[in-house]
Amino acid sequence: MHKTRVDRLRGRIIADGLDAVIVASPMSIFYLTGASIHPFERMWLYIVRADGRDTLLANKLFVFEDTGVETHWHTDNDDAPKLLCEELGGAKNIGVERDLTAKFLIPVLDSIEGVRLSVTTAVDDLRIIKDEEELERMRVSSRINDEVLEEAFSQVREGMTEKELAAVVAKGFENKGTGGQSFGAIVAFGENASDPHHMNDNTTLKKGDCVLIDMGCVWKDYCSDMTRTKFFGGVTEEQRKVYEIVREANEKAKEFVRPGVRFCDIDAVARDIITSAGYGEYFTHRLGHGIGLTEHEPKDVGPANTDRVEAGMVFSIEPGIYLPGKFGVRIEDLVIVTENGCECLNNDSRELQVI
Amino acid sequence: MHKTRVDRLRGRIIADGLDAVIVASPMSIFYLTGASIHPFERMWLYIVRADGRDTLLANKLFVFEDTGVETHWHTDNDDAPKLLCEELGGAKNIGVERDLTAKFLIPVLDSIEGVRLSVTTAVDDLRIIKDEEELERMRVSSRINDEVLEEAFSQVREGMTEKELAAVVAKGFENKGTGGQSFGAIVAFGENASDPHHMNDNTTLKKGDCVLIDMGCVWKDYCSDMTRTKFFGGVTEEQRKVYEIVREANEKAKEFVRPGVRFCDIDAVARDIITSAGYGEYFTHRLGHGIGLTEHEPKDVGPANTDRVEAGMVFSIEPGIYLPGKFGVRIEDLVIVTENGCECLNNDSRELQVI
Repeated sequence: MHKTRVDRLRGRIIADGLDAVIVASPMSIFYLTGASIHPFERMWLYIVRADGRDTLLANKLFVFEDTGVETHWHTDNDDAPKLLCEELGGAKNIGVERDLTAKFLIPVLDSIEGVRLSVTTAVDDLRIIKDEEELERMRVSSRINDEVLEEAFSQVREGMTEKELAAVVAKGFENKGTGGQSFGAIVAFGENASDPHHMNDNTTLKKGDCVLIDMGCVWKDYCSDMTRTKFFGGVTEEQRKVYEIVREANEKAKEFVRPGVRFCDIDAVARDIITSAGYGEYFTHRLGHGIGLTEHEPKDVGPANTDRVEAGMVFSIEPGIYLPGKFGVRIEDLVIVTENGCECLNNDSRELQVI
Repeated sequence: MHKTRVDRLRGRIIADGLDAVIVASPMSIFYLTGASIHPFERMWLYIVRADGRDTLLANKLFVFEDTGVETHWHTDNDDAPKLLCEELGGAKNIGVERDLTAKFLIPVLDSIEGVRLSVTTAVDDLRIIKDEEELERMRVSSRINDEVLEEAFSQVREGMTEKELAAVVAKGFENKGTGGQSFGAIVAFGENASDPHHMNDNTTLKKGDCVLIDMGCVWKDYCSDMTRTKFFGGVTEEQRKVYEIVREANEKAKEFVRPGVRFCDIDAVARDIITSAGYGEYFTHRLGHGIGLTEHEPKDVGPANTDRVEAGMVFSIEPGIYLPGKFGVRIEDLVIVTENGCECLNNDSRELQVI
């Protein structure tokens, strides 16, 4: 599997006229070699070359199983950026993953005469199309996400804090034997939900609040991500109206997804519904994002992305309306693009629910 | 406070002959402006210029209090790297923080004719010297760390798993009202402790195992970090011997710390003790690292760092010996460099303990 992926990457490197690509994201290295490392500030790079001489650059502190790739080791006592420059000897036209940092990039620029650096999406473009094994893991990851979400909503009580409810989510994923959360669950009550990236705090739940939970787990390395917004103890006319607009945006956008459509046009389906209803300025983010080994991956489902959808891609559809000082509603599902439409990975009801 | 910090940074920018610095690490931006953001893949940069025209570049999704700094907003629909290039208009000699990624760097290189980019440590060099308020927070952070460590060791029982003990640590920090863990605690039993970066698993504790806990919390934004290794139900001669070597390395290195000494020489004090005892090859990492708003900061306490120590710096002293397939010992404390020595922030005993 890893060999096939690297062969494909090499084909792309040659097609793009590059001498080498510096793979800088730990998850991309895992995807291509199976080696899983959290390098923190230490060097952990995979050089893939047109001529087939590939090398991993690893600190001796890292422990990983044999990948079959030639590994050049260094220690904390070495000048890591300098070793990278030596490693690249001979390569002039180098693609780098977007995550490579200045700490490594600038020495390469300064020390290799005539080097030409460009950002490459070659690894992203492989990762974005999932194979059957990956899709199955993503299905399970989302199924567990549905189950833990149901559990969490069943434990909602007046007076509980956002942090307490978030702990229920974390514990639920632990009990299911997952690899943990794909991101710290967002739990937002009432007007806190009007900040799409609210940081959970000790706000207590009271009647009439919306309860927004945005959560996900990792199952066999693959992430899930979903959001539901429900209403505690009652719902106002304005809340109901906003909810139904967001729900329609979610559903119509998913119906539109199929191979060949542009990401920006999926975004537009949802955005037009929200804008026509008069809430356009309160839908402040892209409609969705790719997902897989990490919880945010290319490609954006947003107005600026004119790329076309292909079968095997997985991304979120998550319209929202955020009314400052009042409340917020977001309804998020993951979809797999199929040959003639999409498969929605989340089954928790999208009907308005008062709990 | 923020103004003073930015004024100092500007002084350095001018002294270094730079037109501007791109501050790229969210914690550096927090240090300089007070704005705290987790930007994930979105653009969040602070441009500080020699001529005083400073700007924050922020996505409209981010919510933060007014910093007094001119903020230029963008949305998910904008081409963020392009906006950065426009923002830099006129600057040619630009310092960048080491964390700036290729996604932004390469467009700057490609679109600004004659641009000269260099990695700058200007912000690090400010952050590394803590003021009294920062030092006080670090003292409290480490005091809590000591307390929760004691609690955790008091709950060690035969048959418990590493993950269970790690959960005790996490819960302890939560109960103390901290801002959470500064990193996921490492709990390693027996031979697992021979991997310095062991990932906690379901290994169960048995008599004769060493119990290594490496843990830290965040108190008012400042991190703690300490390690203790104790022995469960008994200790072998080899374990005792290794422990006492590591303890001596920890203590002698701390005694050596004072303004003016070189980081490499502190490392050497500990490394020489371990090497003379015949375990040099099993001390596989640097002796320590800086710490403050993040748990790993410049500067390394390692063989390659010939910089000199100054009063107000805070770093770890953490010698270790890791015997593959057998066990590992690490004893880690944080120290503040004082006018004529250092203040150790951790008070949990370093005497060998059988629990």
